[in-house]
Amino acid sequence: MNLNLQNQLKKILNDRFSQSESTRANYARGEDTYDPVLSEAVVFPETNEEVSLILKLCNENKVPVVPFGTGTSLEGHAVGNDKGITISLEKMNKVLVVNTEDFDCRVQACVTREQLNEYLREDGVFFPIDPGANAAIGGMASTSASGTMAVKYGTMKSVITGLTVILPNGDIINTGGRAKKTSAGYNLTNLFIGSEGTLGIITEIQLRLSPIPENIISAICQFKELENAVKTAQEVIQYGIPIARIEMLNKDQMDISINYSKLEDVKPLPTLFFEFHGDEISNKEQIKIVDELSKNNGGSDFKWADTLEKRNKMWRARWDAWYSVKALINNGRVYTTDICVPISKITECVKFAETEVKKLGLRGPMVGHLGDGNFHVMLPYDPSKKEAYEKIKKFNDILIKKSLESDGTITGEHGIGLHKKKYLLEQHADNLPLMKSIKRTIDPNNIMNPGKIFDLN
Amino acid sequence: MNLNLQNQLKKILNDRFSQSESTRANYARGEDTYDPVLSEAVVFPETNEEVSLILKLCNENKVPVVPFGTGTSLEGHAVGNDKGITISLEKMNKVLVVNTEDFDCRVQACVTREQLNEYLREDGVFFPIDPGANAAIGGMASTSASGTMAVKYGTMKSVITGLTVILPNGDIINTGGRAKKTSAGYNLTNLFIGSEGTLGIITEIQLRLSPIPENIISAICQFKELENAVKTAQEVIQYGIPIARIEMLNKDQMDISINYSKLEDVKPLPTLFFEFHGDEISNKEQIKIVDELSKNNGGSDFKWADTLEKRNKMWRARWDAWYSVKALINNGRVYTTDICVPISKITECVKFAETEVKKLGLRGPMVGHLGDGNFHVMLPYDPSKKEAYEKIKKFNDILIKKSLESDGTITGEHGIGLHKKKYLLEQHADNLPLMKSIKRTIDPNNIMNPGKIFDLN
Repeated sequence: MNLNLQNQLKKILNDRFSQSESTRANYARGEDTYDPVLSEAVVFPETNEEVSLILKLCNENKVPVVPFGTGTSLEGHAVGNDKGITISLEKMNKVLVVNTEDFDCRVQACVTREQLNEYLREDGVFFPIDPGANAAIGGMASTSASGTMAVKYGTMKSVITGLTVILPNGDIINTGGRAKKTSAGYNLTNLFIGSEGTLGIITEIQLRLSPIPENIISAICQFKELENAVKTAQEVIQYGIPIARIEMLNKDQMDISINYSKLEDVKPLPTLFFEFHGDEISNKEQIKIVDELSKNNGGSDFKWADTLEKRNKMWRARWDAWYSVKALINNGRVYTTDICVPISKITECVKFAETEVKKLGLRGPMVGHLGDGNFHVMLPYDPSKKEAYEKIKKFNDILIKKSLESDGTITGEHGIGLHKKKYLLEQHADNLPLMKSIKRTIDPNNIMNPGKIFDLN
Repeated sequence: MNLNLQNQLKKILNDRFSQSESTRANYARGEDTYDPVLSEAVVFPETNEEVSLILKLCNENKVPVVPFGTGTSLEGHAVGNDKGITISLEKMNKVLVVNTEDFDCRVQACVTREQLNEYLREDGVFFPIDPGANAAIGGMASTSASGTMAVKYGTMKSVITGLTVILPNGDIINTGGRAKKTSAGYNLTNLFIGSEGTLGIITEIQLRLSPIPENIISAICQFKELENAVKTAQEVIQYGIPIARIEMLNKDQMDISINYSKLEDVKPLPTLFFEFHGDEISNKEQIKIVDELSKNNGGSDFKWADTLEKRNKMWRARWDAWYSVKALINNGRVYTTDICVPISKITECVKFAETEVKKLGLRGPMVGHLGDGNFHVMLPYDPSKKEAYEKIKKFNDILIKKSLESDGTITGEHGIGLHKKKYLLEQHADNLPLMKSIKRTIDPNNIMNPGKIFDLN
């Protein structure tokens, strides 16, 4: 980065332009498996106009930029660029407007999902996308995130109706709007959702909210064999039950979570976490059917979490699953898989994953958003030990092959980042030329998060 | 079109290449307000490979192509091109595969929604997007259609998980897939949905289906004033009732429908058509609340349609609303508006529309998908009478201005076509350069449905 650009950025941002090593190190990666890469500077814009000026300058100087939210990406999206700058959006963290009567709101990129739900607490509405981590909503938009409630409420794609995006040339555009539906020209909103910061920077998000259900009940059911748990989940979906959450934790993960999250009254056994949203009567109906399906597969009696406190404790354990695995290994990293397959293939694929983990002598606790056919194997490892990492990569190769053979995808919700570029080539080789031509059109100097999703050459 | 291209197309398509005047006239427009334009030829491909060859040749010769489904577009999408060819997809009308256990299927572009639902009849699943007309699913994808059940089941955007698209250069690409969710690269699926045939031709659609509800009940409720009907719909949505359909017909439309569709036991009064999907108990709960909200707004007792036959008759009247208006005027045309606003603005906007129609001395029966904030004023006119048409255009100008002032969109579900290009410029002026650059990248010779959505120069 030339001195002239540095001075211009300093002039715009004053002390919100930092070249200190400690700051650069703090924004050098997400929660991924990559070595940190320090950008030349980190900037902290506060307005759309500042982001626009920064991008315009970087574009003129052909200096790469890496957008940064809360840094909870697992795939390397937030890894820095040693010839570029990292743009932290953390100062753009305001809820701009809430329209309760229309079930919508507009937020800045770095509002986190927990922050938004706290803000909405008195309004009878909530933001239903829950990827586990307390991620920034802009980051969740950029990776097309989803999580535990997607089975009922959809993904970021379904709840976002509009965006403010700053393009690499500094143009500020507003896509979509507040209407529940629109057919007005190309769907640019959905082009930027999931584009992982490679086409522009999302600074504002227009979101659909959901009414808080009259009645919420969570329950835990345990099984002797993982296969029976997964089969139960598959049957619940195939039965058409509008369940709100149906999460799997395998035996090893339960063992880890019981210790880490101090879970009581449950055993280290394959487990399903259920949640039902509705009125009392419809929930009772749903529970009756799910209970029967569970019992038919050898499930235990349900353990109920019918108060907010009990529910929070139970779901906190689920949210903390990734951190509980990370805690297993000192200074270690966690490699996470993310395949998603049609529901009819989920039992076979989960079983396959468990067998292959064992065959390779790896440790791989598992969690799954089974209602969507999506599950994660979390593989903790010591980055100084090459051999372990090679085995893990081999496992992911095998698992992704299985997913593609099962009409599935290489990533249900985490995105490509640096991590899955070669797999994207396997899944969408015929699309990549088109993706790349769109990238070249919007970002001709390749300044936006270069090297993420695909390499241009 | 040069003789060489004609001969090459004939060689590929044999008698599925037609230059007869009658055929060309049959594919010269949709159900829009435009004068027919005869393309130089109409072709009827049967396979992806044939579509690919046709586009490749047209691209090399810079000859425009107009994709044609069932011709039910209201906005001029299917109007021919006198220097180009029209590609009718009617021979690509097969249901390719149904996976009942995964609630998905794959169809060719010219499978119609009624055809698909007939095909699925025994399978316990259905395709829930209902725009009224028995449109081709490829056409519905191209315009991002929705209709009466969007309030519960979403739009084409939410039910399509993948596409086969033939690009202007002849490349055949497959976007998305069968997984319920994916974050694998740019969301090309949603770029083509709503692109109105200007970026490529959609030949196959991967769809999510819904389980047929255990219990379906429809009901009609009548009001003295339109405002009270609309307010009821608004309150039902704001109450968070998961209603499946909530359709408005104004007094004039009811009058027309009673005659055209032989509706019995109802009066020419502002009316809501409801439909509830669920189990018997949850439907009863929903109905109780909706009944109370209706009564509070002065609504009549519900008239029930609890058998399939009664329901079909009631909804047939709703589907035929547009045709009933068309039948009012010999050889006439119907100009249809399509604004969509946040639910909190719907009562005000419907009232505004009714007042302005009267002020201008027009006839404008109205229907509305009120749950989405979307409604249509249908204005029949004699195309030989310029003055009437000018008044109608003036009305649409005023209505669209109102929609944009109300945070709404110029088109909820019909698309832009030829008709709304100037309005798109009002709604999305800041986006148009980006839309155009995407168009130029994918279709550098501007052969794909040129002049629709926007003009390139």
